[in-house]
Amino acid sequence: MNLEEKVISTDSIYQGVIIDVERQTVELPNGESAFREVVHHSGAVGVLTITDDNKIVLVRQWRAPIAKETLEIPAGKLDDRDHADKAHAVIRELNEEVRVKPGYLEEITHFYSSVGFSDEEMTLYVASDLESVTDELPRDDGEFLNLETYTLDEAKALIKRGEIEDAKTIMAIWYFELMQK
Amino acid sequence: MNLEEKVISTDSIYQGVIIDVERQTVELPNGESAFREVVHHSGAVGVLTITDDNKIVLVRQWRAPIAKETLEIPAGKLDDRDHADKAHAVIRELNEEVRVKPGYLEEITHFYSSVGFSDEEMTLYVASDLESVTDELPRDDGEFLNLETYTLDEAKALIKRGEIEDAKTIMAIWYFELMQK
Repeated sequence: MNLEEKVISTDSIYQGVIIDVERQTVELPNGESAFREVVHHSGAVGVLTITDDNKIVLVRQWRAPIAKETLEIPAGKLDDRDHADKAHAVIRELNEEVRVKPGYLEEITHFYSSVGFSDEEMTLYVASDLESVTDELPRDDGEFLNLETYTLDEAKALIKRGEIEDAKTIMAIWYFELMQK
Repeated sequence: MNLEEKVISTDSIYQGVIIDVERQTVELPNGESAFREVVHHSGAVGVLTITDDNKIVLVRQWRAPIAKETLEIPAGKLDDRDHADKAHAVIRELNEEVRVKPGYLEEITHFYSSVGFSDEEMTLYVASDLESVTDELPRDDGEFLNLETYTLDEAKALIKRGEIEDAKTIMAIWYFELMQK
Protein backbone atom coordinates (compact mmCIF):
# COMPACT_ATOMS: atom_id res chain seq x y z
CA MET A 1 0.00 0.00 0.00
CA ASN A 2 1.22 3.50 -0.82
CA LEU A 3 1.39 5.38 2.48
CA GLU A 4 2.80 8.73 1.36
CA GLU A 5 1.12 11.98 2.34
CA LYS A 6 1.79 14.98 0.08
CA VAL A 7 2.10 18.41 1.68
CA ILE A 8 -0.36 20.79 -0.02
CA SER A 9 0.34 23.87 2.09
CA THR A 10 2.11 24.88 5.29
CA ASP A 11 1.15 27.58 7.79
CA SER A 12 3.79 28.78 10.22
CA ILE A 13 2.29 28.97 13.73
CA TYR A 14 5.30 29.94 15.85
CA GLN A 15 9.00 30.53 15.39
CA GLY A 16 10.67 30.14 18.75
CA VAL A 17 14.09 29.57 20.25
CA ILE A 18 14.00 25.78 20.73
CA ILE A 19 11.05 24.94 18.48
CA ASP A 20 9.19 26.11 15.40
CA VAL A 21 5.58 25.01 15.00
CA GLU A 22 3.70 24.63 11.73
CA ARG A 23 0.37 23.29 10.53
CA GLN A 24 0.39 21.34 7.27
CA THR A 25 -2.48 20.49 4.97
CA VAL A 26 -1.67 17.12 3.41
CA GLU A 27 -3.19 14.90 0.75
CA LEU A 28 -3.74 11.37 2.08
CA PRO A 29 -3.13 8.21 0.04
CA ASN A 30 -6.88 8.03 -0.70
CA GLY A 31 -6.95 11.59 -2.09
CA GLU A 32 -8.67 13.15 0.91
CA SER A 33 -7.01 15.93 2.86
CA ALA A 34 -6.05 16.23 6.51
CA PHE A 35 -4.15 18.55 8.88
CA ARG A 36 -0.83 17.69 10.50
CA GLU A 37 0.76 19.63 13.38
CA VAL A 38 4.55 19.60 13.29
CA VAL A 39 7.07 20.78 15.89
CA HIS A 40 10.49 21.36 14.34
CA HIS A 41 13.57 20.94 16.54
CA SER A 42 17.26 21.24 15.65
CA GLY A 43 18.11 17.75 16.97
CA ALA A 44 20.10 16.67 19.97
CA VAL A 45 22.68 14.30 21.38
CA GLY A 46 22.58 12.23 24.56
CA VAL A 47 25.44 10.27 26.09
CA LEU A 48 25.53 7.23 28.35
CA THR A 49 28.49 8.32 30.46
CA ILE A 50 30.34 5.58 32.37
CA THR A 51 32.81 6.29 35.17
CA ASP A 52 35.95 4.18 35.78
CA ASP A 53 34.08 2.37 38.60
CA ASN A 54 31.31 1.46 36.14
CA LYS A 55 28.68 3.93 37.32
CA ILE A 56 26.33 5.96 35.15
CA VAL A 57 26.55 9.75 35.34
CA LEU A 58 23.13 11.42 35.56
CA VAL A 59 22.19 15.09 35.62
CA ARG A 60 19.44 16.30 37.95
CA GLN A 61 17.72 19.36 36.54
CA TRP A 62 14.39 21.17 36.44
CA ARG A 63 12.22 20.56 33.38
CA ALA A 64 9.62 23.23 32.72
CA PRO A 65 7.34 21.11 30.48
CA ILE A 66 6.60 18.69 33.33
CA ALA A 67 7.27 21.17 36.18
CA LYS A 68 9.54 18.84 38.09
CA GLU A 69 13.10 17.63 38.52
CA THR A 70 14.40 14.85 36.29
CA LEU A 71 17.41 12.56 36.29
CA GLU A 72 18.82 12.33 32.76
CA ILE A 73 21.95 11.32 30.92
CA PRO A 74 23.98 14.35 29.78
CA ALA A 75 22.40 15.75 26.62
CA GLY A 76 22.07 18.88 24.58
CA LYS A 77 20.72 20.46 21.45
CA LEU A 78 22.71 20.58 18.25
CA ASP A 79 23.72 24.00 17.01
CA ASP A 80 24.68 24.98 13.47
CA ARG A 81 28.30 23.90 13.90
CA ASP A 82 27.39 20.39 15.01
CA HIS A 83 25.52 18.92 12.07
CA ALA A 84 28.70 17.92 10.29
CA ASP A 85 30.08 16.31 13.45
CA LYS A 86 27.65 15.44 16.22
CA ALA A 87 30.44 14.00 18.38
CA HIS A 88 31.53 17.63 18.81
CA ALA A 89 28.24 18.39 20.53
CA VAL A 90 28.72 15.40 22.84
CA ILE A 91 32.21 16.54 23.82
CA ARG A 92 30.91 20.08 24.45
CA GLU A 93 27.99 18.85 26.58
CA LEU A 94 30.26 16.53 28.60
CA ASN A 95 32.52 19.51 29.27
CA GLU A 96 29.68 21.91 30.15
CA GLU A 97 27.61 19.55 32.27
CA VAL A 98 30.00 16.95 33.71
CA ARG A 99 33.39 18.69 33.34
CA VAL A 100 34.97 15.64 31.73
CA LYS A 101 36.52 14.68 28.38
CA PRO A 102 35.89 11.10 27.15
CA GLY A 103 38.88 8.93 26.17
CA TYR A 104 36.38 6.56 24.52
CA LEU A 105 33.31 7.78 22.61
CA GLU A 106 31.11 5.77 20.25
CA GLU A 107 27.71 6.24 18.63
CA ILE A 108 25.09 3.72 19.79
CA THR A 109 22.10 4.60 17.57
CA HIS A 110 19.86 7.47 16.53
CA PHE A 111 16.09 7.92 16.79
CA TYR A 112 13.17 10.32 16.55
CA SER A 113 11.98 11.14 20.08
CA SER A 114 8.34 11.70 19.37
CA VAL A 115 7.64 11.09 15.73
CA GLY A 116 3.87 11.67 15.96
CA PHE A 117 4.27 15.44 16.20
CA SER A 118 7.98 16.34 16.11
CA ASP A 119 11.09 15.88 13.96
CA GLU A 120 13.46 15.97 16.94
CA GLU A 121 16.21 13.48 16.17
CA MET A 122 18.50 12.31 18.93
CA THR A 123 21.83 10.56 18.48
CA LEU A 124 22.81 8.43 21.45
CA TYR A 125 26.46 7.87 22.38
CA VAL A 126 28.40 5.95 25.00
CA ALA A 127 31.41 7.61 26.65
CA SER A 128 33.98 6.26 29.07
CA ASP A 129 37.64 6.70 30.12
CA LEU A 130 36.65 10.09 31.51
CA GLU A 131 39.29 12.71 32.35
CA SER A 132 38.65 16.02 34.10
CA VAL A 133 38.76 18.99 31.76
CA THR A 134 41.10 21.90 32.34
CA ASP A 135 39.29 24.20 29.87
CA GLU A 136 35.81 24.49 31.46
CA LEU A 137 33.22 25.81 28.99
CA PRO A 138 30.53 28.15 30.37
CA ARG A 139 27.14 26.53 30.98
CA ASP A 140 24.10 27.75 29.07
CA ASP A 141 22.31 30.71 30.64
CA GLY A 142 19.62 29.48 32.96
CA GLU A 143 21.11 25.99 33.23
CA PHE A 144 21.24 24.74 36.82
CA LEU A 145 22.08 21.13 37.53
CA ASN A 146 23.38 18.57 40.02
CA LEU A 147 25.54 15.60 39.04
CA GLU A 148 24.89 12.15 40.48
CA THR A 149 26.31 8.69 39.73
CA TYR A 150 24.54 5.34 40.02
CA THR A 151 25.37 1.69 39.50
CA LEU A 152 23.30 -0.23 36.93
CA ASP A 153 21.24 -1.85 39.70
CA GLU A 154 20.60 1.50 41.36
CA ALA A 155 19.58 3.03 38.03
CA LYS A 156 17.17 0.15 37.33
CA ALA A 157 15.63 0.64 40.78
CA LEU A 158 15.18 4.37 40.02
CA ILE A 159 13.30 3.47 36.83
CA LYS A 160 11.10 1.03 38.77
CA ARG A 161 10.33 3.68 41.41
CA GLY A 162 9.44 6.24 38.72
CA GLU A 163 12.37 8.50 39.63
CA ILE A 164 13.89 8.12 36.17
CA GLU A 165 11.18 8.97 33.63
CA ASP A 166 13.15 10.30 30.66
CA ALA A 167 12.99 8.20 27.50
CA LYS A 168 16.61 8.56 26.32
CA THR A 169 17.86 7.85 29.87
CA ILE A 170 15.84 4.64 30.20
CA MET A 171 17.12 3.63 26.73
CA ALA A 172 20.70 4.31 27.82
CA ILE A 173 20.28 2.25 31.01
CA TRP A 174 18.77 -0.71 29.13
CA TYR A 175 21.58 -0.47 26.58
CA PHE A 176 24.12 -0.46 29.43
CA GLU A 177 22.45 -3.62 30.78
CA LEU A 178 22.69 -5.24 27.32
CA MET A 179 26.41 -4.29 27.25
CA GLN A 180 27.00 -6.40 30.41
CA LYS A 181 25.87 -9.63 28.75
CA MET B 1 21.09 23.00 45.13
CA ASN B 2 17.51 24.19 44.68
CA LEU B 3 16.68 23.66 41.00
CA GLU B 4 13.05 24.76 40.87
CA GLU B 5 11.84 27.28 38.30
CA LYS B 6 8.71 29.24 39.21
CA VAL B 7 6.26 30.09 36.43
CA ILE B 8 5.65 33.86 36.43
CA SER B 9 3.33 34.01 33.42
CA THR B 10 2.12 31.87 30.55
CA ASP B 11 1.21 32.92 27.00
CA SER B 12 -0.82 30.53 24.89
CA ILE B 13 0.69 30.29 21.40
CA TYR B 14 -1.48 27.64 19.74
CA GLN B 15 -4.32 25.35 20.67
CA GLY B 16 -4.38 22.49 18.21
CA VAL B 17 -5.76 18.99 17.84
CA ILE B 18 -2.75 16.94 18.97
CA ILE B 19 -0.75 19.67 20.69
CA ASP B 20 -1.10 22.95 22.56
CA VAL B 21 1.89 25.28 22.61
CA GLU B 22 2.69 27.86 25.26
CA ARG B 23 5.51 30.18 26.22
CA GLN B 24 6.27 30.54 29.91
CA THR B 25 8.24 33.22 31.70
CA VAL B 26 9.95 31.55 34.64
CA GLU B 27 12.03 32.68 37.60
CA LEU B 28 15.29 30.73 37.78
CA PRO B 29 16.87 29.51 41.04
CA ASN B 30 19.19 32.56 41.00
CA GLY B 31 16.26 35.01 40.74
CA GLU B 32 16.79 35.83 37.06
CA SER B 33 14.05 35.20 34.51
CA ALA B 34 13.98 33.08 31.34
CA PHE B 35 11.54 31.86 28.70
CA ARG B 36 10.45 28.24 28.32
CA GLU B 37 8.61 26.83 25.28
CA VAL B 38 6.26 24.00 26.17
CA VAL B 39 4.32 21.62 23.89
CA HIS B 40 1.43 19.99 25.74
CA HIS B 41 0.27 16.54 24.60
CA SER B 42 -2.43 14.28 26.03
CA GLY B 43 -0.07 11.31 26.49
CA ALA B 44 0.14 8.01 24.69
CA VAL B 45 0.61 4.28 24.98
CA GLY B 46 2.88 1.98 23.02
CA VAL B 47 2.89 -1.81 23.07
CA LEU B 48 5.60 -4.38 22.37
CA THR B 49 3.38 -6.94 20.65
CA ILE B 50 4.67 -10.51 20.48
CA THR B 51 3.18 -13.19 18.23
CA ASP B 52 2.93 -16.87 19.21
CA ASP B 53 6.03 -17.57 17.08
CA ASN B 54 7.97 -14.92 19.07
CA LYS B 55 7.97 -12.19 16.44
CA ILE B 56 7.47 -8.47 17.03
CA VAL B 57 4.50 -6.77 15.32
CA LEU B 58 5.44 -3.45 13.73
CA VAL B 59 3.29 -0.89 11.96
CA ARG B 60 4.58 0.83 8.81
CA GLN B 61 3.06 4.28 8.42
CA TRP B 62 3.74 7.75 7.07
CA ARG B 63 4.91 10.34 9.58
CA ALA B 64 4.38 13.93 8.51
CA PRO B 65 6.94 15.51 10.91
CA ILE B 66 9.81 13.65 9.23
CA ALA B 67 8.12 13.21 5.81
CA LYS B 68 8.86 9.51 5.57
CA GLU B 69 7.64 6.03 6.44
CA THR B 70 8.46 4.59 9.84
CA LEU B 71 8.30 1.15 11.42
CA GLU B 72 6.86 1.43 14.94
CA ILE B 73 5.29 -0.68 17.63
CA PRO B 74 1.49 -0.18 17.80
CA ALA B 75 0.77 3.04 19.68
CA GLY B 76 -1.80 5.74 20.09
CA LYS B 77 -2.79 8.86 21.94
CA LEU B 78 -4.81 8.75 25.14
CA ASP B 79 -8.25 10.25 25.00
CA ASP B 80 -10.33 11.50 27.95
CA ARG B 81 -11.70 8.05 28.77
CA ASP B 82 -8.24 6.49 29.05
CA HIS B 83 -6.59 8.37 31.88
CA ALA B 84 -8.20 6.20 34.54
CA ASP B 85 -7.20 3.03 32.70
CA LYS B 86 -4.44 3.24 30.11
CA ALA B 87 -4.64 -0.47 29.37
CA HIS B 88 -7.96 0.38 27.72
CA ALA B 89 -6.14 2.52 25.19
CA VAL B 90 -3.71 -0.33 24.49
CA ILE B 91 -6.53 -2.78 23.87
CA ARG B 92 -8.26 -0.27 21.57
CA GLU B 93 -5.06 0.41 19.58
CA LEU B 94 -4.30 -3.31 19.23
CA ASN B 95 -7.82 -3.79 17.87
CA GLU B 96 -7.67 -0.79 15.50
CA GLU B 97 -4.15 -1.32 14.18
CA VAL B 98 -3.39 -5.04 14.49
CA ARG B 99 -6.92 -6.54 14.79
CA VAL B 100 -5.92 -8.60 17.82
CA LYS B 101 -6.87 -8.87 21.49
CA PRO B 102 -4.04 -9.71 23.95
CA GLY B 103 -4.47 -12.65 26.32
CA TYR B 104 -1.48 -11.29 28.27
CA LEU B 105 -0.87 -7.57 28.82
CA GLU B 106 1.53 -5.95 31.28
CA GLU B 107 2.95 -2.48 31.82
CA ILE B 108 6.74 -2.26 31.30
CA THR B 109 7.47 1.35 32.27
CA HIS B 110 6.50 4.94 31.54
CA PHE B 111 8.56 7.90 30.33
CA TYR B 112 8.52 11.42 28.94
CA SER B 113 9.38 11.26 25.23
CA SER B 114 11.09 14.60 24.86
CA VAL B 115 11.22 16.33 28.19
CA GLY B 116 13.20 19.34 26.95
CA PHE B 117 10.16 20.88 25.28
CA SER B 118 7.14 18.59 25.75
CA ASP B 119 5.11 16.91 28.49
CA GLU B 120 4.17 13.92 26.29
CA GLU B 121 4.17 10.90 28.60
CA MET B 122 4.18 7.43 27.12
CA THR B 123 3.34 4.23 28.95
CA LEU B 124 4.96 1.16 27.40
CA TYR B 125 3.29 -2.26 27.57
CA VAL B 126 4.07 -5.80 26.45
CA ALA B 127 1.28 -7.91 24.91
CA SER B 128 1.19 -11.55 23.85
CA ASP B 129 -1.22 -14.52 23.52
CA LEU B 130 -2.84 -12.62 20.66
CA GLU B 131 -6.29 -13.62 19.38
CA SER B 132 -8.02 -12.20 16.31
CA VAL B 133 -10.81 -9.77 17.17
CA THR B 134 -14.35 -10.29 15.91
CA ASP B 135 -15.44 -6.71 16.77
CA GLU B 136 -13.16 -4.62 14.55
CA LEU B 137 -13.06 -0.97 15.63
CA PRO B 138 -12.84 1.67 12.89
CA ARG B 139 -9.39 3.14 12.32
CA ASP B 140 -8.82 6.85 12.87
CA ASP B 141 -9.59 9.06 9.88
CA GLY B 142 -6.50 9.48 7.78
CA GLU B 143 -4.74 6.48 9.30
CA PHE B 144 -3.13 4.25 6.68
CA LEU B 145 -0.80 1.47 7.72
CA ASN B 146 0.84 -1.85 6.84
CA LEU B 147 1.51 -4.57 9.40
CA GLU B 148 4.83 -6.44 9.45
CA THR B 149 6.38 -8.97 11.84
CA TYR B 150 10.06 -9.47 12.61
CA THR B 151 12.20 -11.72 14.77
CA LEU B 152 14.39 -10.07 17.40
CA ASP B 153 17.48 -10.50 15.21
CA GLU B 154 15.69 -9.01 12.21
CA ALA B 155 14.49 -6.08 14.30
CA LYS B 156 18.01 -5.44 15.63
CA ALA B 157 19.32 -5.47 12.05
CA LEU B 158 16.63 -2.91 11.08
CA ILE B 159 17.83 -0.61 13.89
CA LYS B 160 21.43 -1.02 12.73
CA ARG B 161 20.48 -0.18 9.13
CA GLY B 162 18.53 2.91 10.24
CA GLU B 163 15.18 1.47 9.12
CA ILE B 164 13.82 1.58 12.64
CA GLU B 165 14.33 5.12 13.97
CA ASP B 166 11.48 5.54 16.45
CA ALA B 167 12.51 5.91 20.10
CA LYS B 168 9.74 3.86 21.74
CA THR B 169 10.22 1.09 19.16
CA ILE B 170 13.98 0.82 19.79
CA MET B 171 13.22 0.80 23.54
CA ALA B 172 10.70 -2.01 23.05
CA ILE B 173 13.17 -4.08 21.00
CA TRP B 174 15.95 -3.65 23.57
CA TYR B 175 13.48 -4.58 26.30
CA PHE B 176 12.51 -7.67 24.30
CA GLU B 177 16.18 -8.58 24.09
CA LEU B 178 16.55 -8.16 27.87
CA MET B 179 13.50 -10.46 28.32
CA GLN B 180 15.38 -13.27 26.52
CA LYS B 181 18.18 -13.35 29.10
